[in-house]
Amino acid sequence: MNARSEAGGGYSRARQAPAPPPGSGGSGRTGTGAGFQTMWRELAAVGRDSGSGGYRRYAWTPADTDCRAWFRAQAEDRGLAYETDRNGNQWAWLGDSAAGDAVVTGSHLDSVPDGGAFDGPLGVVSAFAAVDELRARDVRPHRPLAVVNFGDEEGARFGLACVGSRLTAGRLAARDARELRDADGVTLAHAMERAGYDPDAIGADPERLARIGAFVELHVEQGRALDLDGHPVGVASAIWPHGRWRFDFRGQANHAGTTRLEDRHDPMLTYAETVLAARARARTSGALATFGKVAVEPNGVNAIASLVRGWLDSRAADEDTLAEVVAGIEQAAREHGARDGVSVEVVRESFTPVVEFAHDLRDRLAALIGADTPVPVLPTGAGHDAGILASAVPTAMLFVRNPTGVSHSPAEFAAEDDCAAGVTALADVLEGLACR
Amino acid sequence: MNARSEAGGGYSRARQAPAPPPGSGGSGRTGTGAGFQTMWRELAAVGRDSGSGGYRRYAWTPADTDCRAWFRAQAEDRGLAYETDRNGNQWAWLGDSAAGDAVVTGSHLDSVPDGGAFDGPLGVVSAFAAVDELRARDVRPHRPLAVVNFGDEEGARFGLACVGSRLTAGRLAARDARELRDADGVTLAHAMERAGYDPDAIGADPERLARIGAFVELHVEQGRALDLDGHPVGVASAIWPHGRWRFDFRGQANHAGTTRLEDRHDPMLTYAETVLAARARARTSGALATFGKVAVEPNGVNAIASLVRGWLDSRAADEDTLAEVVAGIEQAAREHGARDGVSVEVVRESFTPVVEFAHDLRDRLAALIGADTPVPVLPTGAGHDAGILASAVPTAMLFVRNPTGVSHSPAEFAAEDDCAAGVTALADVLEGLACR
Repeated sequence: MNARSEAGGGYSRARQAPAPPPGSGGSGRTGTGAGFQTMWRELAAVGRDSGSGGYRRYAWTPADTDCRAWFRAQAEDRGLAYETDRNGNQWAWLGDSAAGDAVVTGSHLDSVPDGGAFDGPLGVVSAFAAVDELRARDVRPHRPLAVVNFGDEEGARFGLACVGSRLTAGRLAARDARELRDADGVTLAHAMERAGYDPDAIGADPERLARIGAFVELHVEQGRALDLDGHPVGVASAIWPHGRWRFDFRGQANHAGTTRLEDRHDPMLTYAETVLAARARARTSGALATFGKVAVEPNGVNAIASLVRGWLDSRAADEDTLAEVVAGIEQAAREHGARDGVSVEVVRESFTPVVEFAHDLRDRLAALIGADTPVPVLPTGAGHDAGILASAVPTAMLFVRNPTGVSHSPAEFAAEDDCAAGVTALADVLEGLACR
Repeated sequence: MNARSEAGGGYSRARQAPAPPPGSGGSGRTGTGAGFQTMWRELAAVGRDSGSGGYRRYAWTPADTDCRAWFRAQAEDRGLAYETDRNGNQWAWLGDSAAGDAVVTGSHLDSVPDGGAFDGPLGVVSAFAAVDELRARDVRPHRPLAVVNFGDEEGARFGLACVGSRLTAGRLAARDARELRDADGVTLAHAMERAGYDPDAIGADPERLARIGAFVELHVEQGRALDLDGHPVGVASAIWPHGRWRFDFRGQANHAGTTRLEDRHDPMLTYAETVLAARARARTSGALATFGKVAVEPNGVNAIASLVRGWLDSRAADEDTLAEVVAGIEQAAREHGARDGVSVEVVRESFTPVVEFAHDLRDRLAALIGADTPVPVLPTGAGHDAGILASAVPTAMLFVRNPTGVSHSPAEFAAEDDCAAGVTALADVLEGLACR
């Protein structure tokens, strides 16, 4: 715990602009309840860019400090015991945090650049709303309960996702974390310090993890599986293995106005063929493969490129399929490169193995919230703090329907009724796990 | 003329690093002669980046000032009357500059980013060497002769090519030129002023043009036509019409790890199809079409792009063919865009009509230098100051063989013997036009 942690926080309720809650009206007429509505409205203005309409809540910035002040206020309003851990993750405890076998729920409050309102905050707001719901049901937990906000989940500032949960789970060395740098060259250590935290304190926290009996993260779905299925809420089965590969296509810079087609070594052609091959391979394998980032040299209108660097993001249901997909894309790149007189180099920049969530916890969740109708159990391609914690703690996830599937975008959306169903499901889970 | 023009120039012979002249040896054993060799060596070190090995001689920078100081020293060494015109172009006169019907030769000394040694400088060095050759032949011009260095031909700094010749020919308004800005926001007017020139003086110079009877620009070829033909020197027939078109492909940003392929609107796919369509269209039409510059938003590894912006450079032998090629590429982009759920917008950013060089001057050059073997007459896809002047003055071009065809690159090259053949051909032309 760090007494300075909110010293720099500018959050106060007076600063919040009125902003609509999910769905229309904001009257609280449907099930999310007044608490959810109020929390949503308070968070809506924090870190929002007036130009794009998207959120820019990056780790250890003033917007992040405001989010953290909001979390602390929610904990204190409910009489929950507030603390920050050595890695800057925030906790709000109902019951004895030292007793062990705790049931923890929560998510994160930071965002990608121009992200949506739901990815992360929906899990935190729903967690507090579920605690309210348990109290309204007048049920008493016999296990400690906690709401958590993991820091720096998106990795938007320092380039590495899930820094808070990685540190706590011992999946990221403190020394490596401190040396992470943002686009301006500021280290994570310096950024933490400026935000009022102690970077010398960060590191693995096995004692904290040992006190957790179950972690459940509620998250907006980032695809359309639930929408296509007709369900407002689902349970996660696994996180697909995924990775990033950098493809360097090297040709020869030359004058675009004078070089005969047959004399060219144009890496843009090989890149284009590889983009299309990636889509084709993904389609035939039921996988995902995306080129979303490109860098070109010299990047002049009248110059044939000397270098096109493209980054492949690929994910699949299992590691063998993923390896096959990426090998196929690489082979296509090399074949086209040979034809175009372009060299191809492929570097794997990151890889995350498959995360299979604990089957007994997953089945218990499905039973608790699917008493009336069976609940969908679905995989996801996105990484989460839950995926990091799963190696150390029994972990599960709930997904709330996303009618468009859009995420990491200001257009990200979930209907108010579905958010309410998510809160009810999470309360059912907490009641089932902690109160019976 | 501007007395301050070389005030800031740091050029001095002592500063020149020894650098090899074109070809090997540098002994002057073959035909370029000691004067050419010395000039080439002096220029070799000016504005060269030690990292890339390419030239960064941008308008009104210290490297440009050094090039200008070199030009003035060459003029004065030869007893030629030196002047700069109102637009900062440099002139070195043999004979009475006011007499009219002058024969002018020269090119430019500025470069593209990391350009080669030959594009521009070969024409200026060869011009001075040809004047030396006329004196060695002991022939007397009965028309005034001049060597010229046009400023800012490449447009590398302010984004518009041939600014010096455009201004002089009245093809660019002085007010528009003054407001051109570089990447740092510095206006051309301010840059000129800092280099010791008067931006208030710039503008059309019809009286100067009226005193020119013929302009001949010698240039390294920027393709391999002469090499394939087996000739060291050729004569230009025309400059192909050419233009730049910006293609905006707009889709929908989304999470690369969770969005199903069938729910995507990925503009990278449409861009890739368009790159390949451009190559196919160019091939079937005998034209050129190149995507060498790209900008992507948000350009994140795990984000499907919302916008891919690609710039097409296209050129063809005639304007109808060029229009057909570009229309075909645009149609392919729209068809693929419709399939991918991606909108396509195409904006023509620039267009330069065909330049047909004066046929009588072209035929006279071909006869003067092709007495023994017929000389190739070939078109080019690249713009030149000669293309700008052609609308006002009888204009011709000589090309010197480029064995690799590489240009706008540090690898740009011409053999010493071919450079010597270029000087001889240019001297033959000057003698034929001005001394008989």
